[in-house]
Amino acid sequence: MNQRLLVVSAHAADWVWRCSGTIAKYKKLGAEVWVICLSHGERGESGEVWKQPNQTTETVKATRLKESEAASSYLGVDHFEMWDYPDHPLVASQELLDRLNEKMREFKPTLIITHDWHDDTNADHCVASEATFTAFGMSRHKGVPSQCSDTTEIVQIYGFEPSQTERSGYVPQVYMDITDVWETKQEAMALIKAQPKTCIIHSRVNTHRGWQAGRMPGGKGIQYAESYTVRYPIILKDKLF
Amino acid sequence: MNQRLLVVSAHAADWVWRCSGTIAKYKKLGAEVWVICLSHGERGESGEVWKQPNQTTETVKATRLKESEAASSYLGVDHFEMWDYPDHPLVASQELLDRLNEKMREFKPTLIITHDWHDDTNADHCVASEATFTAFGMSRHKGVPSQCSDTTEIVQIYGFEPSQTERSGYVPQVYMDITDVWETKQEAMALIKAQPKTCIIHSRVNTHRGWQAGRMPGGKGIQYAESYTVRYPIILKDKLF
Amino acid sequence: MNQRLLVVSAHAADWVWRCSGTIAKYKKLGAEVWVICLSHGERGESGEVWKQPNQTTETVKATRLKESEAASSYLGVDHFEMWDYPDHPLVASQELLDRLNEKMREFKPTLIITHDWHDDTNADHCVASEATFTAFGMSRHKGVPSQCSDTTEIVQIYGFEPSQTERSGYVPQVYMDITDVWETKQEAMALIKAQPKTCIIHSRVNTHRGWQAGRMPGGKGIQYAESYTVRYPIILKDKLF
Amino acid sequence: MNQRLLVVSAHAADWVWRCSGTIAKYKKLGAEVWVICLSHGERGESGEVWKQPNQTTETVKATRLKESEAASSYLGVDHFEMWDYPDHPLVASQELLDRLNEKMREFKPTLIITHDWHDDTNADHCVASEATFTAFGMSRHKGVPSQCSDTTEIVQIYGFEPSQTERSGYVPQVYMDITDVWETKQEAMALIKAQPKTCIIHSRVNTHRGWQAGRMPGGKGIQYAESYTVRYPIILKDKLF
Amino acid sequence: MNQRLLVVSAHAADWVWRCSGTIAKYKKLGAEVWVICLSHGERGESGEVWKQPNQTTETVKATRLKESEAASSYLGVDHFEMWDYPDHPLVASQELLDRLNEKMREFKPTLIITHDWHDDTNADHCVASEATFTAFGMSRHKGVPSQCSDTTEIVQIYGFEPSQTERSGYVPQVYMDITDVWETKQEAMALIKAQPKTCIIHSRVNTHRGWQAGRMPGGKGIQYAESYTVRYPIILKDKLF
Amino acid sequence: MNQRLLVVSAHAADWVWRCSGTIAKYKKLGAEVWVICLSHGERGESGEVWKQPNQTTETVKATRLKESEAASSYLGVDHFEMWDYPDHPLVASQELLDRLNEKMREFKPTLIITHDWHDDTNADHCVASEATFTAFGMSRHKGVPSQCSDTTEIVQIYGFEPSQTERSGYVPQVYMDITDVWETKQEAMALIKAQPKTCIIHSRVNTHRGWQAGRMPGGKGIQYAESYTVRYPIILKDKLF
Repeated sequence: MNQRLLVVSAHAADWVWRCSGTIAKYKKLGAEVWVICLSHGERGESGEVWKQPNQTTETVKATRLKESEAASSYLGVDHFEMWDYPDHPLVASQELLDRLNEKMREFKPTLIITHDWHDDTNADHCVASEATFTAFGMSRHKGVPSQCSDTTEIVQIYGFEPSQTERSGYVPQVYMDITDVWETKQEAMALIKAQPKTCIIHSRVNTHRGWQAGRMPGGKGIQYAESYTVRYPIILKDKLF
Repeated sequence: MNQRLLVVSAHAADWVWRCSGTIAKYKKLGAEVWVICLSHGERGESGEVWKQPNQTTETVKATRLKESEAASSYLGVDHFEMWDYPDHPLVASQELLDRLNEKMREFKPTLIITHDWHDDTNADHCVASEATFTAFGMSRHKGVPSQCSDTTEIVQIYGFEPSQTERSGYVPQVYMDITDVWETKQEAMALIKAQPKTCIIHSRVNTHRGWQAGRMPGGKGIQYAESYTVRYPIILKDKLF
Repeated sequence: MNQRLLVVSAHAADWVWRCSGTIAKYKKLGAEVWVICLSHGERGESGEVWKQPNQTTETVKATRLKESEAASSYLGVDHFEMWDYPDHPLVASQELLDRLNEKMREFKPTLIITHDWHDDTNADHCVASEATFTAFGMSRHKGVPSQCSDTTEIVQIYGFEPSQTERSGYVPQVYMDITDVWETKQEAMALIKAQPKTCIIHSRVNTHRGWQAGRMPGGKGIQYAESYTVRYPIILKDKLF
Repeated sequence: MNQRLLVVSAHAADWVWRCSGTIAKYKKLGAEVWVICLSHGERGESGEVWKQPNQTTETVKATRLKESEAASSYLGVDHFEMWDYPDHPLVASQELLDRLNEKMREFKPTLIITHDWHDDTNADHCVASEATFTAFGMSRHKGVPSQCSDTTEIVQIYGFEPSQTERSGYVPQVYMDITDVWETKQEAMALIKAQPKTCIIHSRVNTHRGWQAGRMPGGKGIQYAESYTVRYPIILKDKLF
Repeated sequence: MNQRLLVVSAHAADWVWRCSGTIAKYKKLGAEVWVICLSHGERGESGEVWKQPNQTTETVKATRLKESEAASSYLGVDHFEMWDYPDHPLVASQELLDRLNEKMREFKPTLIITHDWHDDTNADHCVASEATFTAFGMSRHKGVPSQCSDTTEIVQIYGFEPSQTERSGYVPQVYMDITDVWETKQEAMALIKAQPKTCIIHSRVNTHRGWQAGRMPGGKGIQYAESYTVRYPIILKDKLF
Repeated sequence: MNQRLLVVSAHAADWVWRCSGTIAKYKKLGAEVWVICLSHGERGESGEVWKQPNQTTETVKATRLKESEAASSYLGVDHFEMWDYPDHPLVASQELLDRLNEKMREFKPTLIITHDWHDDTNADHCVASEATFTAFGMSRHKGVPSQCSDTTEIVQIYGFEPSQTERSGYVPQVYMDITDVWETKQEAMALIKAQPKTCIIHSRVNTHRGWQAGRMPGGKGIQYAESYTVRYPIILKDKLF
């Protein structure tokens, strides 16, 4: 399989909860996977770490980085980067956009996964989603300044789930069956000890999505699923699915 | 290919303008295709025929039927039925729903194409869409009265385009490449002489959709396309597309 | 002015509260105006009348009819019809649609005013709106059975305000200045004694719409306005407005 | 507590899955609770029963009725009625509306719970919701024919969750904490043996809603919750909440 | 009553027109109320002041400040701050967000009122709403830099009305009865002489909301009301309302 | 005709494709027309130019400028300005807003045309639309700093079409008949050689809009049309249209 999957995550572990089943699936298929975390989430997602004694921003960031790298290694991610922008609020500066532009031209992804562009309760997630979309647009145009003269092809951008789906106007358009990699995802989530309850929540979400998928066309037998929106329409050349 | 495609059309030729490219594609792939027209459209879609001298409801219906059957034969549709309900307004009576239920249990479609469920300027199209959805629900349940004890599996229901897409809230979710069957579709449309300008309009629509698809992920080289919405989410077992 | 305005009202006095300013304006301009009330509103809109002693459905209907006719005469409406369908719920039977179809072919309106097609708290209003739209579609097609062989031209259909605008998703698209006929509207409203508070409410609504209109492009000097939605897009041949 | 809660359910057990926690809470508070099931759901919700040998419509209905009555008794529901309309499709006939109108005038509910008015995958649920709303409107007007001369006061109508929330456009507006009656709800659900997996699904839904509620203003400590929409705005006389 | 109400207003007097009835109510109940104005509104809301001779930005700001402080004193607001950012456009700089974050940690509000997050005709209002929401998120997280080590609890954020409600997509979710403090609100509004007509407009709006509320569940007797949206869902522990 | 039309375009040629028919119409009527391009579009819209040998940002910009000026001259535009901000992403800096504010006060437009405020696939278009709206608000207020003491009157702001209308939520509200200036528009489009295919696409779009307009009220005979949204409601003083 000649696929290159790029994942852009607002904070250190969003990607683990929300798309590591799909990552596991793609690694099994032989794809190359890159993960970029725009921030450590040391402010907004690290409440449990801050409860421990003698924490500073630096120690919290170190903890978050170590755990995300561990999950990344466990999943076989080929390339993991922590960009260390502050979170809450995450700001999509021109410099951040330029850096994403360069990285996309370098990697030339065949598909991209990031946050859905709506999240009613976490604005950082929206910022990450829009930055990914904007930078991807930049990477496709010859005239945009870059150290890399190559441009990228247009590829699909998938949006993973926010926490408050209904209030955020998130409507799952695509369900990815992750039944065969469910244990792998569970192991990866367990490595993120900074957010001990989040593993339980996303296990429940994936179980619920699996139940929904199992009743939908072509879904027989699915037990666990991750759901996504798609930024572009779906183009089919051979037949409907 | 072991596919069975069911098409439900409100009037005699909606299906020709809006999905005959996909039908041609499926016939090429060896699928079995059934087309059901709920009405002749003798009231609302036959203005040009009524302009000819000495027309009655019966002569107009005869003209519409003959031309739709001709298109159907040309495309190699395996089974064509004209149900002859009045149009403008089309009414989804219990009898109509029961009949669709029976037909679906008999045919056991692997995919269904009908009108999108919103059409701001033609309520018959909405009625046909909802009737198809309701009858499909009936066909899936053992307890619903039927002469056929079998039930159907859940399959995807595609909605084809209304005329005023933006005002109807229609958002194309799936584009089907029909470049390789474009001439076939043109021939089929040309057989519907009752609506002489409609062929030009849908050629333009399919060209525009082809242009849009050609710029989207995976769309390189597409010249002509039909677009659809999907009634259910898309379930993927292997990989994202 | 060679205009023919058709107003279709769910109950006896909806049209007075919601568009009689526009009617007054059109009468001043020399237009012909027809008003059709689908019901007396004897059930849902006549609470105050029922509070009087010894009321029956027949006495309530007589009261409502007398007052609506008085407003109609005062405004110079050319033709007023009370169709006497039951309300709450109002049902758009085939017979009602056929009757509207005939009336439209007879009158050949150059514009139509009825309820907006959304009303979150009064389903009769939605039914009246949809029936008007459906019957108008019927009146435009030669093939639809009718005693009148003529068909109608396509004309704009305006939707007047529901009571709970925001919850009904009503967004005013067009404001009609009724400042110069404001006293006429007030007099007409005062004739509907069956709903004594409603005059106050709609005076407030028209004042608020006047204030909004006065701050919008081209609205300087407006004090009172009625607002509408439009069912079709607006077509301009000379210049933007 | 002087509350009278009316629950209207499309099928035999919708109300158990979706609001029996709230019912348990209200019974604990001393309220009077009436439950009306419009149908047995013998067609669309009874697949597991039909799998057993020698089933007929009558035997399936008997099973569904027995189990719903058992849950009703267990929860202390004061009055339970099975109206035995056919399902899939459920039709809101004038007779059904009249009957609901009578029942509402008789009971004079202080709050009503039924299906949310949108359900993308089960049209019967929408029909039940709209019928409840329409009949409630009828019950409030003196002029609507009834054997009961009393009318009802306007009360809030809550809508419980559909299965595919996001696709149905369902946005939870109110979360009811059911932590203290959770075991009661579990017992009630376990009595519906006709739908053995549904108990698991709704336990998951209520757990997820409990988790969401626990992170929202005023939600500390909540473990299980049922969510609702509200048909009318919320009116507060003392203070915001 | 142990409530602390924080109000964040884009300009000098938005808060007076749109929520001073609720403030009066809370003061009557013994709550502590803080009001923060992000700008004087010297550019976009002070047209009448500019019409007076010899005005400069400084004199206009002095006028706006004096009048807002007068209204604040009249209402018994405990703490009033004018932050003096430029308006039209108001910009939510990192410095503004940090300052709001500090103020929230200091005050620890039990509820927050600001602009609804949509306003089709005044972008400053949207900016104020989003800044309040973002800063509140910052105030809840230990890791966000602050001179105050305390964090805040999650509390409800209410959004008050824009001027063009329907075009802004504003749907009132909560109506607060202000009948008993109506005279107080009228006095407070009269103190804002810089916007002489605005008092009339909001008296009309509050009267209209009062009329709507009076017909809704639990609203009997209400004459005047302020309406709000809620940013988070409503969590109920005891019973539905 | 005493009209002054201001057009604000994100890139060098957006205005040619999307509203030059309306410009031609207004020039025919004797209006004064100003066009401002915020950027050359040298990055995102100039792919074909970059394919030619030895291109630099400066040579691409020179090409784009020359062709836009040619179209502008051909159409008789009175005043054309290229502001030379970078595109992809276009950023609405305070300086850009101030400059637009000054220009609007100088020109005092009687109508404004810019991009619709939604464009799902080109964020620069949204930025240009919002900047125009914000700057127009600034130009209307005496207190906003400006070298020009005059302010502007409120005038309508029209939004022209994005490329992916349905996905962008674009709903055409107004169709402008450009049949009588169609050849002029074709000539103008042909002058933009940097985007050779775009002329074909917009010819198709204008033909499709013409066909839609021709079937709408008042549209008989229209062959080509440009469609728009309106930012403000439409105010009518004489009669409905």
